[in-house]
Amino acid sequence: MLYLIGLGLGDEKDITVKGLEVVKKCDEVWLESYTAILPGVSAERLAAYYGREVKLADREKVESGIQGLIEKAKTTDVALLVVGDPFGATTHMDLWLRAKKLDVPVQAIHNASIMNAIGACGLSLYAFGQTVSIPLFQGNWRPDSFYERIQSNKSAGLHTLCLLDIKVKEPNLQILETKGKIVYDPPYFMSVKEACAQLMEVENKKQLGVLKPDAPCIGVARIGREDQKIVYGTLAQLAEQDFGEPLHSLVVIGEVHPLETEILEYFQIK
Amino acid sequence: MLYLIGLGLGDEKDITVKGLEVVKKCDEVWLESYTAILPGVSAERLAAYYGREVKLADREKVESGIQGLIEKAKTTDVALLVVGDPFGATTHMDLWLRAKKLDVPVQAIHNASIMNAIGACGLSLYAFGQTVSIPLFQGNWRPDSFYERIQSNKSAGLHTLCLLDIKVKEPNLQILETKGKIVYDPPYFMSVKEACAQLMEVENKKQLGVLKPDAPCIGVARIGREDQKIVYGTLAQLAEQDFGEPLHSLVVIGEVHPLETEILEYFQIK
Repeated sequence: MLYLIGLGLGDEKDITVKGLEVVKKCDEVWLESYTAILPGVSAERLAAYYGREVKLADREKVESGIQGLIEKAKTTDVALLVVGDPFGATTHMDLWLRAKKLDVPVQAIHNASIMNAIGACGLSLYAFGQTVSIPLFQGNWRPDSFYERIQSNKSAGLHTLCLLDIKVKEPNLQILETKGKIVYDPPYFMSVKEACAQLMEVENKKQLGVLKPDAPCIGVARIGREDQKIVYGTLAQLAEQDFGEPLHSLVVIGEVHPLETEILEYFQIK
Repeated sequence: MLYLIGLGLGDEKDITVKGLEVVKKCDEVWLESYTAILPGVSAERLAAYYGREVKLADREKVESGIQGLIEKAKTTDVALLVVGDPFGATTHMDLWLRAKKLDVPVQAIHNASIMNAIGACGLSLYAFGQTVSIPLFQGNWRPDSFYERIQSNKSAGLHTLCLLDIKVKEPNLQILETKGKIVYDPPYFMSVKEACAQLMEVENKKQLGVLKPDAPCIGVARIGREDQKIVYGTLAQLAEQDFGEPLHSLVVIGEVHPLETEILEYFQIK
């Protein structure tokens, strides 16, 4: 059996009791470390908590070597630990499909992900439109299709959850080209600050009034951890805020209802 | 401290390790049984698993008597257990606010909810638009504002998660009027079958082609439990399917991407 086990958002204790029981009985335990991380929670820390080996399934493993892992799950129990919920990323849906094609039974053990835990910011989950991803602008590569989606959500009165770029184990292209060898860049996690700057840059270009400096937004960091940070302010204000350690996300606010307004006051920027 | 603890979607073992630790150390433990239930998991079963008393916070308690519970949390540790994630329902956001107003510290312990676990049906969470609620039609009360929202999602190529009506501890109005006493109706959970019938009824009235009998949909039941059921078919087909025990939800499919199509084949109606 292949188990896809959600780790939730906080630390090693945010796994469910069911998930922990499965981890303890599996023959092999892998941590998927490519699509997301638990800040401050390493494979070693998980291994120490579980009392067993936890192998790292990084980008290469997930994208190329995963077939072997699925094959193993034909005859043994293999757990793949995933930050958040197992179905939060396309990578894991693809994994599910590959296992099914090989007739390997798969079971998912759900957990919180930013897609539902964002409710902690005081906005109703039922008033969110489509979620968008904000990619890191690099050189001339400044894709801005998220702008239209935020506009569409806003015009329907809906909030938009913006997931910020993560780059883990990306090969340095310059070194690859010049020296022909693979050297990995250090991991990168986009901050609320950077995201706000990019959003205002796109507004400047488009001039449609969707993401003006005074647009009300909420920046969040480390949701689900004790040191989580939730700040409500304008785009321009949040662009000046330091949210500390990753992971960060941003919400562009749509129409606000009375209960939401009252809650937001508690997160108002000082 | 007031702890809002998500129970997730399956059974008593879907609480997180962190949540369980808090439950064990709290002075009082309440189960919120008004906005959702874990099918087959009673307060008694939770109590037996935790090894301690679990009191039932029903509709009356949550809507009227909750102030006392919050007051208690000023000086002791009180846990309120909530099916899914603590911020999945307005009721809990309201509770959070009331606690804050009384200067009572609140901590949420997140978990899976249908809002993210619906990813198990094979559709990408990033391709969902606004979630809608389908209320049970009764007599002339047949509100259909969900139709427009599904239409708006569909025209943007987005999927729609439809949450189906739940009625727990609702006073029987007829008995109240005629006999002046409060008698509660048995709990009611809308089935996929009923939801499909209502959706097609609204289509019949509106005739805008959004929810025709051949509209592709996914019916799900008991997501997160071992006996979960996921069936992909047309609205008319799902209207004939028995999904068994609650809780049920329905997804109206928007534009489908290749990976989604491949996964959906595994859930195709037989």
